[in-house]
Amino acid sequence: MGDPLPSWRPGAVRESVVAFLDAVTDVPVADRLACFDNDGTLWCERPTYVQFDYLIDLLRAADRADATIQDRPEYAAVLDGDPEAIGDLGLVRVALALTELCEGWTPEEFTASVGAFMARAPHPTLGRRHRWAVYQPMLELLDALRARDVTVSIVSGGGTEFVRAVSDDLYGVPPELVVGTMIAYDYDRDAGGRPRLRRTAEVDKGPNEGAAKVSAIQSQLGRRPRLAAGNSGGDREMLEWAAGQDGPSLALLVDHDDADREVAYTSVAQSFAEAEPITEVGSALGWTVVSMARDWAQVFPEAR
Amino acid sequence: MGDPLPSWRPGAVRESVVAFLDAVTDVPVADRLACFDNDGTLWCERPTYVQFDYLIDLLRAADRADATIQDRPEYAAVLDGDPEAIGDLGLVRVALALTELCEGWTPEEFTASVGAFMARAPHPTLGRRHRWAVYQPMLELLDALRARDVTVSIVSGGGTEFVRAVSDDLYGVPPELVVGTMIAYDYDRDAGGRPRLRRTAEVDKGPNEGAAKVSAIQSQLGRRPRLAAGNSGGDREMLEWAAGQDGPSLALLVDHDDADREVAYTSVAQSFAEAEPITEVGSALGWTVVSMARDWAQVFPEAR
Repeated sequence: MGDPLPSWRPGAVRESVVAFLDAVTDVPVADRLACFDNDGTLWCERPTYVQFDYLIDLLRAADRADATIQDRPEYAAVLDGDPEAIGDLGLVRVALALTELCEGWTPEEFTASVGAFMARAPHPTLGRRHRWAVYQPMLELLDALRARDVTVSIVSGGGTEFVRAVSDDLYGVPPELVVGTMIAYDYDRDAGGRPRLRRTAEVDKGPNEGAAKVSAIQSQLGRRPRLAAGNSGGDREMLEWAAGQDGPSLALLVDHDDADREVAYTSVAQSFAEAEPITEVGSALGWTVVSMARDWAQVFPEAR
Repeated sequence: MGDPLPSWRPGAVRESVVAFLDAVTDVPVADRLACFDNDGTLWCERPTYVQFDYLIDLLRAADRADATIQDRPEYAAVLDGDPEAIGDLGLVRVALALTELCEGWTPEEFTASVGAFMARAPHPTLGRRHRWAVYQPMLELLDALRARDVTVSIVSGGGTEFVRAVSDDLYGVPPELVVGTMIAYDYDRDAGGRPRLRRTAEVDKGPNEGAAKVSAIQSQLGRRPRLAAGNSGGDREMLEWAAGQDGPSLALLVDHDDADREVAYTSVAQSFAEAEPITEVGSALGWTVVSMARDWAQVFPEAR
């Protein structure tokens, strides 16, 4: 068998990952669960979240069809690309307003709409489509885990159904292994009396961030992960949850320090009422902090 | 390949099941989902739900350790085996009181407790353990579905974590494919600062029955089932959801009409404010109604 991790450069980080891959085969198969954050961990989240790009795309189409869409301040702020106006309104309010664009859709309609967007949408700066703005080293890690009978899941703060619309194609992850922020459905019947589900604009439970990720992992996946990977403050509890147990575990934190090949930025975690860089939290807690610049020989798959 | 369904007698029901197994291979693999109710569909639910038996067992142990447990009317009614007192208090109130017996437990503690119960607990009338009060024809169907790359899930009104504690052993179903009534967890830290999850006595969302089953299937499993199997009014919407689509589907309803080998009883569905036997609903809607007495050559696995 060749090297399963060709894009991981030699060094302490690669050694830590390889040691985990060796050790996890001692864990009972039923307990081999890995949880990956999506935005910023499996694919690029800058300059905007892909899901936000998708919603802006929907909004532009709605604006072309109906000029009165601009009457709503949340939509005007987004269409004007006005960060200050968006900040004044609050990102949550703006996000919920955008979610209303899909209200009443069936699950199949939403999935088809995301699929059509992903088939064409370019990343704004990387010179490739969003679909290929995935991290090659992480794709290799997902495959190496599955080769060892580890169940690979995605635990995202993003919309559950949005991630599901891409997860099989991008990562080989089926819908039941995607845990995210869920928009509630209404169950009713159509004019012919056939049952149907239609999207509301309500979040079913709170956003899937922080400690909520830990509860959601137990609620939906039913066991404690042996590996958790993330890149932001919203992943802190999930990584602590994986790391804080006996036996093999790996808490993997991606440090976006590669301005040449991606974007260099720092995510923060709230701890003791003070914001500190999540990479400092991770180092202090003994996590495996991945420097994109140092540890990854290749960031993205061959351009397509 | 031999007959995958040796316990299904020849007849219209068997033909309908076999026709579905043939047709489902035309469905894309990603859409091949089957959802089975548990109590009364995969295993025996009479004279009491197994989960209720488990909770009574816990209550008896608590009573032996602490006689003041009887001071609580919900517990006294259960310990006295007094159906009238239970009815007066209301089954939901009694069930929630019993759920408090596990408050503060970690997921691992709960799973271990259920496992210990299942290893010894006898079914009250069948002369076998609960663990073997599963329906042999259904075990054959689960295997036949998986042999055709159908994802087999359990969608139960029972406690999610209770079903998960038995689902791999009894049915080969992993925890992420169990959807049920979820008790919420609290996330906090132990004295050593390590994160932990502990059971509350609160239901996370409402009971997983009726239309809630349809929403939960989409929320946790992310697609529409091609097969749904059930036996009671709480399964009606799930079966309609499977049946009411284009392409291959199967809505399978178990009719408990076998007083000799199990228990004969009738489950009802509320429709148009009137209770009617669910088997009549199923026949009217064109579902495949399984007569245990007529269609199953063998009900339970060889006694162990």
